[in-house]
Amino acid sequence: MTLNLTDARAIIAAAEAKAGEIGQPMNIAVVDAGGNLIAHVRMDGAWIGSIDISINKAFTARAFDIATKDLGDNSQPNQQFYGIHASNHGRIMIFAGGIPISRDGRVVGAVGVSGGSGEQDQTVAEAGAAAL
Amino acid sequence: MTLNLTDARAIIAAAEAKAGEIGQPMNIAVVDAGGNLIAHVRMDGAWIGSIDISINKAFTARAFDIATKDLGDNSQPNQQFYGIHASNHGRIMIFAGGIPISRDGRVVGAVGVSGGSGEQDQTVAEAGAAAL
Amino acid sequence: MTLNLTDARAIIAAAEAKAGEIGQPMNIAVVDAGGNLIAHVRMDGAWIGSIDISINKAFTARAFDIATKDLGDNSQPNQQFYGIHASNHGRIMIFAGGIPISRDGRVVGAVGVSGGSGEQDQTVAEAGAAAL
Amino acid sequence: MTLNLTDARAIIAAAEAKAGEIGQPMNIAVVDAGGNLIAHVRMDGAWIGSIDISINKAFTARAFDIATKDLGDNSQPNQQFYGIHASNHGRIMIFAGGIPISRDGRVVGAVGVSGGSGEQDQTVAEAGAAAL
Repeated sequence: MTLNLTDARAIIAAAEAKAGEIGQPMNIAVVDAGGNLIAHVRMDGAWIGSIDISINKAFTARAFDIATKDLGDNSQPNQQFYGIHASNHGRIMIFAGGIPISRDGRVVGAVGVSGGSGEQDQTVAEAGAAAL
Repeated sequence: MTLNLTDARAIIAAAEAKAGEIGQPMNIAVVDAGGNLIAHVRMDGAWIGSIDISINKAFTARAFDIATKDLGDNSQPNQQFYGIHASNHGRIMIFAGGIPISRDGRVVGAVGVSGGSGEQDQTVAEAGAAAL
Repeated sequence: MTLNLTDARAIIAAAEAKAGEIGQPMNIAVVDAGGNLIAHVRMDGAWIGSIDISINKAFTARAFDIATKDLGDNSQPNQQFYGIHASNHGRIMIFAGGIPISRDGRVVGAVGVSGGSGEQDQTVAEAGAAAL
Repeated sequence: MTLNLTDARAIIAAAEAKAGEIGQPMNIAVVDAGGNLIAHVRMDGAWIGSIDISINKAFTARAFDIATKDLGDNSQPNQQFYGIHASNHGRIMIFAGGIPISRDGRVVGAVGVSGGSGEQDQTVAEAGAAAL
């Protein structure tokens, strides 16, 4: 009950196609049910600072079974999870681009995208998640 | 397509001159296209806490091809990149003083300055960036 | 003068084929000239502890322009680089499986492989490096 | 009673000249009496993995007021300081290339060099230290 490398590649291919379509090179990462990286690609020209972010958006989405965008809403100052970004040795990303992936009602992994605006990252991550 | 040591020294010399002009000793760092440090100087009397900050402002400016001041605007609470400062193992600086440096339309490195107010850091970094 | 994503995928495909041939699932990572990750894959069944190791073997091979196997020979107790594994925030790997990749006499990136014995990792990394 | 930026530049210039003479590009770093970085340069073509090492060889030499080469002799397995490289958050380097610098019998800073063999690093560091 976890994503495998074939799944990860399908997710990445779909995300990459969407990134190409919107003209924004991206880092795309997929983790398994254990939160561990299965695959990562940095498209030519994508930011090097987004390598870590894409991997950790995927980790975060699986770590809490929630989209990082939604976690972010709850992690602003004065919200219930404010400060959560300091946990897990800097691996918790609280902005758009990480999405958990489910199969038969169970979260089996996640995709993380970083390289553009929050909206662009989210769009590309959604395209990736829709591949399965 | 990257800054070299000669470039870095020219950038540092220009930044140092500006820091002298405004009477505020600074840490000044230059990274290459890969985000890796080429050179750093701490002017006499500059803060020791700013060694790390200057190096990481330069890293950040290259990591996302953006001035740290502008990244900061997007990284405040409720903005699209809020929480980005937790990524990349503490290397992301989201306040003024880091500027990417381009040649023929491509980012080839960056300068980072720390040691004064945000405005002073920015002024000195701009003087450095203008040297090329 | 750096590897790009197309190169990285060719390297990974060749390494993956060799790993399949010897029947040992592997983590395979490729970094660019700046030491920054371009792509990573974990084959189904490969160790999760090897994710970090494969990425950092690739980093190490580029960081010192040397195969990690050879660096390892010089980093044993009483050898000239003993203790180097404590540097670079735990990113230096001193056992077989990381190989720098050159083009026109310049190192343009590196491949890192982890998931089997040192000999297996080395064999798979060599197959990857030979793809270019 | 500490090295200043003028001193650091004199040390770096001498080290750089020696590195040029032996034909091995180096990373050269100088720290003050507090162990804090004053200046660093990476000569064109020098290893990126040696940025951290040069800075931390200088730190180590001042941290214990001893050449890293000599500390290394005492830090091999079964010697009195074996394991010291695990301390100070990975900043302790126990191989040749870091030398404390004294004035009037007091250690006022240190130089750290990394980029070649242990012998080359030591030679270049000695040339740097001799500049004062």
